[in-house]
Amino acid sequence: MRPFSFRVLATDGAARQGLVETAHGDVRTPAFMPVGTQAAIKGVHPATVRASGADIILGNTYHLMLRPGAERIAALGGLHKFMNWPHPLLTDSGGFQVMSLAQLRQIDASGVTFRSHIDGALVALSPERAVEVQNLLGSDIVMQLDECLKLPAERATIERAMRLSLAWAERCKRAFEGAAGGRALFGIVQGGDDAGLRLENTRALIDIGFPGYAIGGLAVGEPQEVMLAMIEAVAPALPRDKPRYLMGVGTPDDLLQAVARGIDMFDCVMPTRDGRHGRVFTRLGPINLRNARHAADPRPLDEQSPCAAARDYSRAYLHHLTRANEMLGAMLLSEINLAYYQELMAGMRAAIAAGRFDAFRAEASAAWDAGDIPAR
Amino acid sequence: MRPFSFRVLATDGAARQGLVETAHGDVRTPAFMPVGTQAAIKGVHPATVRASGADIILGNTYHLMLRPGAERIAALGGLHKFMNWPHPLLTDSGGFQVMSLAQLRQIDASGVTFRSHIDGALVALSPERAVEVQNLLGSDIVMQLDECLKLPAERATIERAMRLSLAWAERCKRAFEGAAGGRALFGIVQGGDDAGLRLENTRALIDIGFPGYAIGGLAVGEPQEVMLAMIEAVAPALPRDKPRYLMGVGTPDDLLQAVARGIDMFDCVMPTRDGRHGRVFTRLGPINLRNARHAADPRPLDEQSPCAAARDYSRAYLHHLTRANEMLGAMLLSEINLAYYQELMAGMRAAIAAGRFDAFRAEASAAWDAGDIPAR
Repeated sequence: MRPFSFRVLATDGAARQGLVETAHGDVRTPAFMPVGTQAAIKGVHPATVRASGADIILGNTYHLMLRPGAERIAALGGLHKFMNWPHPLLTDSGGFQVMSLAQLRQIDASGVTFRSHIDGALVALSPERAVEVQNLLGSDIVMQLDECLKLPAERATIERAMRLSLAWAERCKRAFEGAAGGRALFGIVQGGDDAGLRLENTRALIDIGFPGYAIGGLAVGEPQEVMLAMIEAVAPALPRDKPRYLMGVGTPDDLLQAVARGIDMFDCVMPTRDGRHGRVFTRLGPINLRNARHAADPRPLDEQSPCAAARDYSRAYLHHLTRANEMLGAMLLSEINLAYYQELMAGMRAAIAAGRFDAFRAEASAAWDAGDIPAR
Repeated sequence: MRPFSFRVLATDGAARQGLVETAHGDVRTPAFMPVGTQAAIKGVHPATVRASGADIILGNTYHLMLRPGAERIAALGGLHKFMNWPHPLLTDSGGFQVMSLAQLRQIDASGVTFRSHIDGALVALSPERAVEVQNLLGSDIVMQLDECLKLPAERATIERAMRLSLAWAERCKRAFEGAAGGRALFGIVQGGDDAGLRLENTRALIDIGFPGYAIGGLAVGEPQEVMLAMIEAVAPALPRDKPRYLMGVGTPDDLLQAVARGIDMFDCVMPTRDGRHGRVFTRLGPINLRNARHAADPRPLDEQSPCAAARDYSRAYLHHLTRANEMLGAMLLSEINLAYYQELMAGMRAAIAAGRFDAFRAEASAAWDAGDIPAR
């Protein structure tokens, strides 16, 4: 079994290009992880996800522990085998979904108790159980249990949640000891929109010691500049030789800005969720295919795209599919979005390696700002 | 432009194996046409449909004339280009959907007037307009406008609808004169469940003369034996050198039984619609993947299937996807069903060519009757 490792291969300003090695293969960073909430990327075949350039995907502990159950997946050979994805997999700890989906949450030092959004069953999730579930799933990268808050929140609330998450980080680390090799547990920096709390929490997590660090509790309602300020507070304090993962982010511009500030990994439902709603991201910026301007347009979405779906169908056809609520529309647009996200990450990696990340960033932003080709 | 043609290459009893040639390519018969109602096969990429072995697909005139509109599709280069399907295409005439979907129908000799199920707009469909719409779409095989009834129906009602459809057949033929080459207009035999009316209608249509004949108005609620009896009444009276198309049919057993009685072409939404509802067809008969017996089953659906989706995922995973309403479940099961239908058609073609159709039919039926592998 190969040990889990991370190497920075090149830097350009604060931006880093590197490689994560796991038991299931390598992850080129900066990396974007498509989200397979219920053991499936919505509307896209695993082979298509892989072909788009994804090295790693994310699964949701909350959803999988409720259905079909972690013990069930373990008995079937683990999540990689279950979903036919033999490549690296990261699972979150369930904390974020407990906040956003479950009802009747009760949080205390021991963990969180909640009612399943599927059948109302009462479920307990402790730091130890969160690690156990992720071990059963066989994740290459396991996330500590944390308490996520919506922003804005009171400083006292943020501080309480941060201290609870820190205590859970320590318990998760103990629970993860002795786990099978080639895998890693990441700590999660909390602290809301308070730079001081963020920095304090970062240092405390480093004292515990993790092979990778995530920044959690962002992209939960705050403006982009707040998110970027938090990254600027945290990233410089993180060890240079460990991967840094910004959870649940974001738009293409979020990715560009966060990489510029030293982030290595991302996950977000946006490419597939927006694809299901007629919205695509391309080098021309976001485009809403439900808009009537596309109804008679014979041109492809982007004839320069490396993604066949963006070249082989007219805008008029994609517009028709979204208006008619055809599954194929959601499938093609999700595919186009995932491909664009990976194209963007590949562009960033190449630019950092070539020492021209600032130029790449300026070019990408200028193209987005210039916007879509004019309507006919 | 190649002319439209049909050749019988082999027969075995009443079963025929043959080849339809169209401007967009060949169709091996007996042929099953997946249904792309709104210019898309629900949940399946066109390339996957093609790879499953489909030579031809069906589009629905009723849906396409309402959205995005036949003139729109024509301006975009026709339906083949619109939906990225450069192979043969058949379109129905809209008659069946007017009956099943539209409100406030008024039928008289001139045609049918109805309200769109999408926006309530009043739409007129005459025999001439049905041909015009299909010419605008660029269909390789155009169907005459007919009046479809639900069964059971009064004999007088059936006879009136049959005579109206016959008059429309003649008008469609005149409207189709001068259409671009390599394409064909098929007449449709009506007559409900009355063998005498069916035969009378068949002879009248042959007098008008068409390059192909369909049997319509079946699989609309009547038992299978009634459907087969109608085929037995009509097929022997049809010209041997023209293709015969049984519209809207059916289950794998329906296909086997109808080919045995001389049918060459079929279309049905069943593979994709059932796939969206957790039901698959395989050589082991129908299987409902929502059933709890599959929840912990690590075995693939059918390890002998030529379809990768039937081999690469466990039953437990397919069960999970259907229970969790994941799009990927609908996609994979639709793909598996389309592949099985094409596998069945290929098996029938080979068996007819080898003069062992009865043996093939008995083997397929015996395997379906033996049913699925036992639960673990």
